[in-house]
Amino acid sequence: MSYQRIEQHQRQLSRYHHLQAICGWDQSAMMPTGGNEARAEALASLDVLIHNRLTEPSVADWIATASDEPLTPEQRANLREFRRQWQNASLIPPELVEAHSLANSHCEHAWRSQRPANDWAGFAVNLSAVVANTREIAKIRADALGVSPYNALLALYEPGASTTQLDTLFADLRQWLPSLIQRVAERQSVAEQQKGSAILIPQGPFPIEQQKQLGLEVMQLLGFNFDRGRLDVSAHPFCGGVPSDVRITTRYDEQDFTRSLMGVIHETGHARYEQNLPYAWRDQAVFQGRSMGIHESQSLFFEMQLARHPAFLALLTPLLNTHFGAQPAFAAQNLQRLYTRVQPSLIRVDADEVTYPAHIILRYEIERALIEGDAEVEDIPALWDQKMQEWLGLSTQGDYTNGCMQDIHWPSGAFGYFPSYTLGAMYAAQFRFAIEAEYGDLGTLVERAQLPTVFSWLRKFIWQQGSLLETDELVKNATGSTLNARWFRQHLEQRYG
Amino acid sequence: MSYQRIEQHQRQLSRYHHLQAICGWDQSAMMPTGGNEARAEALASLDVLIHNRLTEPSVADWIATASDEPLTPEQRANLREFRRQWQNASLIPPELVEAHSLANSHCEHAWRSQRPANDWAGFAVNLSAVVANTREIAKIRADALGVSPYNALLALYEPGASTTQLDTLFADLRQWLPSLIQRVAERQSVAEQQKGSAILIPQGPFPIEQQKQLGLEVMQLLGFNFDRGRLDVSAHPFCGGVPSDVRITTRYDEQDFTRSLMGVIHETGHARYEQNLPYAWRDQAVFQGRSMGIHESQSLFFEMQLARHPAFLALLTPLLNTHFGAQPAFAAQNLQRLYTRVQPSLIRVDADEVTYPAHIILRYEIERALIEGDAEVEDIPALWDQKMQEWLGLSTQGDYTNGCMQDIHWPSGAFGYFPSYTLGAMYAAQFRFAIEAEYGDLGTLVERAQLPTVFSWLRKFIWQQGSLLETDELVKNATGSTLNARWFRQHLEQRYG
Repeated sequence: MSYQRIEQHQRQLSRYHHLQAICGWDQSAMMPTGGNEARAEALASLDVLIHNRLTEPSVADWIATASDEPLTPEQRANLREFRRQWQNASLIPPELVEAHSLANSHCEHAWRSQRPANDWAGFAVNLSAVVANTREIAKIRADALGVSPYNALLALYEPGASTTQLDTLFADLRQWLPSLIQRVAERQSVAEQQKGSAILIPQGPFPIEQQKQLGLEVMQLLGFNFDRGRLDVSAHPFCGGVPSDVRITTRYDEQDFTRSLMGVIHETGHARYEQNLPYAWRDQAVFQGRSMGIHESQSLFFEMQLARHPAFLALLTPLLNTHFGAQPAFAAQNLQRLYTRVQPSLIRVDADEVTYPAHIILRYEIERALIEGDAEVEDIPALWDQKMQEWLGLSTQGDYTNGCMQDIHWPSGAFGYFPSYTLGAMYAAQFRFAIEAEYGDLGTLVERAQLPTVFSWLRKFIWQQGSLLETDELVKNATGSTLNARWFRQHLEQRYG
Repeated sequence: MSYQRIEQHQRQLSRYHHLQAICGWDQSAMMPTGGNEARAEALASLDVLIHNRLTEPSVADWIATASDEPLTPEQRANLREFRRQWQNASLIPPELVEAHSLANSHCEHAWRSQRPANDWAGFAVNLSAVVANTREIAKIRADALGVSPYNALLALYEPGASTTQLDTLFADLRQWLPSLIQRVAERQSVAEQQKGSAILIPQGPFPIEQQKQLGLEVMQLLGFNFDRGRLDVSAHPFCGGVPSDVRITTRYDEQDFTRSLMGVIHETGHARYEQNLPYAWRDQAVFQGRSMGIHESQSLFFEMQLARHPAFLALLTPLLNTHFGAQPAFAAQNLQRLYTRVQPSLIRVDADEVTYPAHIILRYEIERALIEGDAEVEDIPALWDQKMQEWLGLSTQGDYTNGCMQDIHWPSGAFGYFPSYTLGAMYAAQFRFAIEAEYGDLGTLVERAQLPTVFSWLRKFIWQQGSLLETDELVKNATGSTLNARWFRQHLEQRYG
């Protein structure tokens, strides 16, 4: 049976992906600088090998004939997901893949020094080459999939999503988010200026070894399986490795534990998803997180819905006292104010959960216009500034470093990725309300040490589903309806309104 | 030209070996237990891939025609070494390679818990599978190379060596070593029992972080390049990674720093060899250590010839005082007595350099009998006990943990490897006398901070030679004659006699 051949082929590919994941993790978390040249060559060779195996001529035949074979629903889902991967890999001619890869590497490498130098002119030249290739790729994918060029890129990260859906969701946010941001920011600012009401900032230093122990304890509390994963350090935190051995990373600042701690919790959300994928399907295409947005929904469920909940922050107080010595700033109520402070700011990765969607929507609008040919690279700074003014009342004029040059996504060619972050935040809120509808208030569950109940729900409805269902089905199955922005709104108004 | 095709082919293979080396290092130094099943599968797939690429039908043609092409001596050496690798690989059918790899992974992984549990029965089952595959491989190789099965395995680690050579060298040792062991052990024991003459044992605890810092400083002193390598922890210390990124490991005991410290120095010897291979030949077969024995000669040169020299031990005193606080046991003369104590003991890796060859010869005799069919797995404990009695007067009856289950070599299928350790010790002594013939006493060089002179000699005559020469040529070129046990005897008698 052709279907069996596909499963066998995927087992092989999965083992190569394993090597790629571990050597990629090592490159970021362990490798000394001098090792990079040989490592880059080794990983590039592996990329070529995987691409060649995935696009072998016989694969197309297997896919064509497997569709007519008698398959279980799970097998059919596996075939659908494998076909998606195969199509993503085989649509683009190898010369364009290589040109794209080279232009991205060049642009990203130069960006690392151009960004701190605020060198927009230099960056724009490289970015134009990246955009030109990306448009070409988007066009080829669009023609084959019968969708618009931007939707064709979006499908790489969010199969099933479309600009129609995003426009509806984002139009909803536009109705109520700007006024919420303004209201909350003002109210918090007034509260802080009242005598004796300033938020207390934890006083360092916070020894790195203690931060690490704290992170490990919180991971334990959140159910991370240390028999199948590790916590290490890298410049840019990520969740990597393989489902049987998930590697998360953080970076420590001796003067401020707060970001690393929430970072660890965020990556633990990704990690639990990976560690609890449906093991019976290991090595197969359905043995993967459903989409970038669903993956992000898990990290944001952990970081935002759960860890910023007053009941959870109260659990941190004794841990902080133990690791760093007691201080008034560790009181639960102060932690809560500290971790729910809303402030319009320039940098996406440092943004609070209320202003975060503004950062995403402006990027979405700009990258979509770029890909659809409604804007050119030279238009980006003006568009950026206009939208930052509109959404957050901040000017980035002349400040490319903290404006349109801040993210790695565009220089590395990842157009169509940004929406996943806000989709993830919305899914996370919807999941939380679904859990509460069944088991009652999340805070009460935390207080009664019933976190396992929460994780069981996630395991059953999200983690163990892998990619067996399409995103809309998955969400409907879990919550009774497809994605709706009202739960995100309800969450933000409950916590900040 | 076929020769160029071979170089190109090796570049590809070298990149796959890179992935293998890093994922192998990770498996021992980083991976949590639960990750092992998928890792073993991924590495087995990579073994198969490398094997298939190395043995592609066209390779045989390239080798055949390249021999008649005009080549430089270096290219000819490269062709010879590649041919060796190709022959080693192409003799064994892929199914046997995979079965062997899986059986080894399984046996080694189980051994990690079976050894501390003294579970010989459980271990013997897995080891029998390993031995069965190894015999099959040895037989195939023996038939093709026209040598005995054991010589056919030996050639994997020591091209050019044979049981004839080993029997001669070991017969020489058998003449004088047992009496030397007895004489030294007795003399040292009497000396220690004299009033006020006991060797002072350093008093712990020695915090692990301090031991690590000490190790890193000693590595620095010995010229380890930290831009192309790391020091980590693993249950069984080793030198792994790739020449551009050498990964050495150690294990720490909070009550005893002495073993870890010498272990780090030992692995640093391996590491410097790797880091100083002839870079112009990177990715090629000649870009490799000459043999396991020559590799071991470098680690033993560092650990035995150099680091146990009184002049070098004197350099450690201030470092130990700094890291652990001063204590009388750190005095140079006491360190020297501590580090040159001769005591028949059960564990090979902890053995002093005088009794060490006994551990090797007994293993050599047992594994040779196993491979040649003169012994079976169930005979090992009795053979072990008998030979330990004979050589060192010690009983291991019922103690498998500290007897025949102590080493990783057999569970990981490395039969034919053990002789390399004693060959290495002999080469190291011969190299030391060659250096002294040119530059004078090693102790004086150390005292005058002329270690770089010593390293320059090693770099020129050993490290930079890679596998350009055959072992006998390399040694003759460096020292004026091929391997001779007299230098080892002279070294031991000088230091202990």
